[in-house]
Amino acid sequence: METRRFARYRPDGGWEGIPEAEYKRQAPEGMEFRSVIRRELLTTGAAFHMRYFEIGPRGYSSLERHDHVHAVVCLRGAGRVLVGDEIFEVRPFDFVHVPADVPHQFQNAGEEPFGFLCVVDAARDTPRRVDPDDLAALVCEFPTPTA
Amino acid sequence: METRRFARYRPDGGWEGIPEAEYKRQAPEGMEFRSVIRRELLTTGAAFHMRYFEIGPRGYSSLERHDHVHAVVCLRGAGRVLVGDEIFEVRPFDFVHVPADVPHQFQNAGEEPFGFLCVVDAARDTPRRVDPDDLAALVCEFPTPTA
Repeated sequence: METRRFARYRPDGGWEGIPEAEYKRQAPEGMEFRSVIRRELLTTGAAFHMRYFEIGPRGYSSLERHDHVHAVVCLRGAGRVLVGDEIFEVRPFDFVHVPADVPHQFQNAGEEPFGFLCVVDAARDTPRRVDPDDLAALVCEFPTPTA
Repeated sequence: METRRFARYRPDGGWEGIPEAEYKRQAPEGMEFRSVIRRELLTTGAAFHMRYFEIGPRGYSSLERHDHVHAVVCLRGAGRVLVGDEIFEVRPFDFVHVPADVPHQFQNAGEEPFGFLCVVDAARDTPRRVDPDDLAALVCEFPTPTA
């Protein structure tokens, strides 16, 4: 990966030579997730990391907060994104900015994979769980899908 | 822009609320370009800047080199990208990594706009022109389109 200059995108297969990775090694209590894969496009040689995440139907990322920001561009599918006290319905190429320390979660809102690029600082803090009471104070219309 | 959390993408119009900007303020000798626009998606609060460039038919970016790297994902159209001694034919979602100090240039290779995200370090050096002799030693099949 480190010295790769080009990676061809294959619909439904990701990028040639960029393996599917675990989204997170484990899900601490209160940071559960479902049906999320991760591909790392660039993680060396710059002050940032460029990753791609894909969430399957009825899947969602961890509800979390951290000091580093996210710059996100949707590539495929339909998503619903919680950013603090706002919820955005996201479609291809829409841009989402998650500011520092704002609780956030990404959910698939359709029947095909919801995929998005997510760029972060290379040096960044570990995500923390969001206290349920804090979340309840922010928003009441963002139910986490149940199995 | 700084506090924006969401920007809807409009086909052929870019993102709502994110204005079209100049690609470069000026073109020094040997760093000419044609038909390039720039949109800045995120330029504060992180160690990186996320930008979008769109090159019109028969357009091209500056042939240049610099110490900072580029992480590029094509969003639309068809491009031809010079990265040192390699040329890549680029289509939507293909990934291009321009390593440090490698001469590079982006050209539109089709009839519709060629658009791509390009992420760079927030703290970065100024692009420099590529000496024509250096380029000739690298590659001989990447003609710059003429007017």
